[in-house]
Amino acid sequence: MIRIATEQIQSVSFDGETLYILDQTQLPAVTQYLRITRIEQCWQAIKELKVRGAPAIGIAAAYGLLLGLKDVAADGFDDFYQGFQEKSEYLASSRPTAVNLFWALNRMHARLIAEKEHSVEALRAKLLQEAHAIRAEDEAVCRSIGMHGLTLLHDGMTLLTHCNAGAIATAKYGTALAPVYLAKERGWNLKVIADETRPLLQGSRLTAWELTEAGIDVTLITDSMAAYVMSKGWVDAVIVGCDRVAANGDVANKIGTYGVALLAKAHCIPFYVAAPMSTIDMDTASGDAIPIEEREAGEITNGFGVHTAPPEVKVFNPAFDVTPNELISAIITEQGIVRQPYNETLIELFKQGGNSGEGTRHVES
Amino acid sequence: MIRIATEQIQSVSFDGETLYILDQTQLPAVTQYLRITRIEQCWQAIKELKVRGAPAIGIAAAYGLLLGLKDVAADGFDDFYQGFQEKSEYLASSRPTAVNLFWALNRMHARLIAEKEHSVEALRAKLLQEAHAIRAEDEAVCRSIGMHGLTLLHDGMTLLTHCNAGAIATAKYGTALAPVYLAKERGWNLKVIADETRPLLQGSRLTAWELTEAGIDVTLITDSMAAYVMSKGWVDAVIVGCDRVAANGDVANKIGTYGVALLAKAHCIPFYVAAPMSTIDMDTASGDAIPIEEREAGEITNGFGVHTAPPEVKVFNPAFDVTPNELISAIITEQGIVRQPYNETLIELFKQGGNSGEGTRHVES
Repeated sequence: MIRIATEQIQSVSFDGETLYILDQTQLPAVTQYLRITRIEQCWQAIKELKVRGAPAIGIAAAYGLLLGLKDVAADGFDDFYQGFQEKSEYLASSRPTAVNLFWALNRMHARLIAEKEHSVEALRAKLLQEAHAIRAEDEAVCRSIGMHGLTLLHDGMTLLTHCNAGAIATAKYGTALAPVYLAKERGWNLKVIADETRPLLQGSRLTAWELTEAGIDVTLITDSMAAYVMSKGWVDAVIVGCDRVAANGDVANKIGTYGVALLAKAHCIPFYVAAPMSTIDMDTASGDAIPIEEREAGEITNGFGVHTAPPEVKVFNPAFDVTPNELISAIITEQGIVRQPYNETLIELFKQGGNSGEGTRHVES
Repeated sequence: MIRIATEQIQSVSFDGETLYILDQTQLPAVTQYLRITRIEQCWQAIKELKVRGAPAIGIAAAYGLLLGLKDVAADGFDDFYQGFQEKSEYLASSRPTAVNLFWALNRMHARLIAEKEHSVEALRAKLLQEAHAIRAEDEAVCRSIGMHGLTLLHDGMTLLTHCNAGAIATAKYGTALAPVYLAKERGWNLKVIADETRPLLQGSRLTAWELTEAGIDVTLITDSMAAYVMSKGWVDAVIVGCDRVAANGDVANKIGTYGVALLAKAHCIPFYVAAPMSTIDMDTASGDAIPIEEREAGEITNGFGVHTAPPEVKVFNPAFDVTPNELISAIITEQGIVRQPYNETLIELFKQGGNSGEGTRHVES
């Protein structure tokens, strides 16, 4: 386990022999990259949430599978395929609810089938290529979101964000934070105000951490302070990520997003959602159809190892909320920016070259 | 130190010999009443914030002074007065920023001067009477706020509240929570949704605790969930306490109050402020003139005994915010309820028998 100097934070990287995973469970206290050479270590890193964020999990799984295949000594395709299936099923068991884990493993499987006429050695090379492609495509998606997002911003602005849709959840750049990183590359001085994002504090533990590491000016507030900083005129735009966008532009994202959107509207501040095309679900008509997961009370009453509420108190702990489309100034995708009326503009976007639904990768946190 | 069974929580009570103070620093894990027989113990309880809430601090100080006077063996007024001054100055040093501590000690002093013709024994009795009066008047103020507040509510309603303006901050009933306790006496079933109120969690540590103890149906949420529960139609009214009301009806209260008021407006939910007359400051024209205290970063970055943010991150931590009068449906005082235009109705209220400014008691937490 070593600390690797990188120009920019990369949650997952692979040098052909070793898989490096940023251990997000130790943030913000300790910055440690796990040095992984065996599939079992990768399984454990996914299982224990050391790697989080749907794209990052998928990339880790693809590389982890390659590590596992090193133990498969096969002469022909059938033997190799059997070994592949065993290793893939093993990795899939690490976090059975992570949609993107399966998406990545299925994509590796499809490549293997497509290349079945090749030798085992060639198959290994093709699979490495595929894993690199999964990583590179995610980076390209994020970078493209960042480039489109930049057109809405200018030097000197202050953005408020909620939760973490940043570099460490993806291959690079993140989604909501991609314009911030690209602005930095361009020499702009953007400032960020980060909501701490109770109950799990992704804003203080992750967003504040990764922006600090990147040398970006970030100020941490509690969620309850967002209205006040807006009233001071300190926020030029809000930008958040999303878990799912419905066909009418309603957006499901981390609990608290809806409130921030209402506060932004009350202060005439634009509210932007960064959404990879893979999160746009044209089969979901509106936010009403998106189920909202409720999580355990302990996250609120005992989130940090201390009882901060009466032990038996009733708790309501929804993980997400839905922001109705009328509060959203624009949705930023890798294919471009869309605005109202979303039920028309989203269809247009897919006609221009997006794909709907297939391989949906929900950016969880 | 014993646990006293009471029909309703009383943060401070005195039986002539012993002062009982609910140790709020141990809530919600442990419910313990300190049994105080010496002024030094009272000094310590105030110093260490074991008693909090401006009215409760004032009451504790008045009774603590009586405990101190037991050690003053005086034959005549002059000796007794000198002893009184020493004990009073000693208690005043426990928490020099607590306005209401001085208010209560000054009131005891005024009574002593007014009764100076009496014997020392009679003076002790008069001072006990005065301390009881301070306590009883605060209870009456809270009860009256509760009665007026009830006229805005009906059986079966759900109220959302922020921070703690409850029984344990006052002699009894609290301010914002007074209507809830009186509704319970009346046999109504009111439900309460309590914001946890970051960073110091007065909502989860104190409001959820005291309502649970009183058998009132309370549900705890994070501050970021208020918008979501409102959108569900679960909130019939918001009711909060206040630190200070300006002459135009702007209200300074715990950080996050302004955001809740905006969210209530967006959902067409009435937003009520419970304000003792003593918190209405007619010398402050508007909220712009109210200074907002900024508190230390550690409350946000290390609030649970664990570092939950990068150690060096910039933090903005205002203790209060100002809710502009146009977001306030009504202000509930012990003299009655006022509505817009507050710059006229508040003047009317004082003409009807209130007193402005003198003995201002800011309900802190």
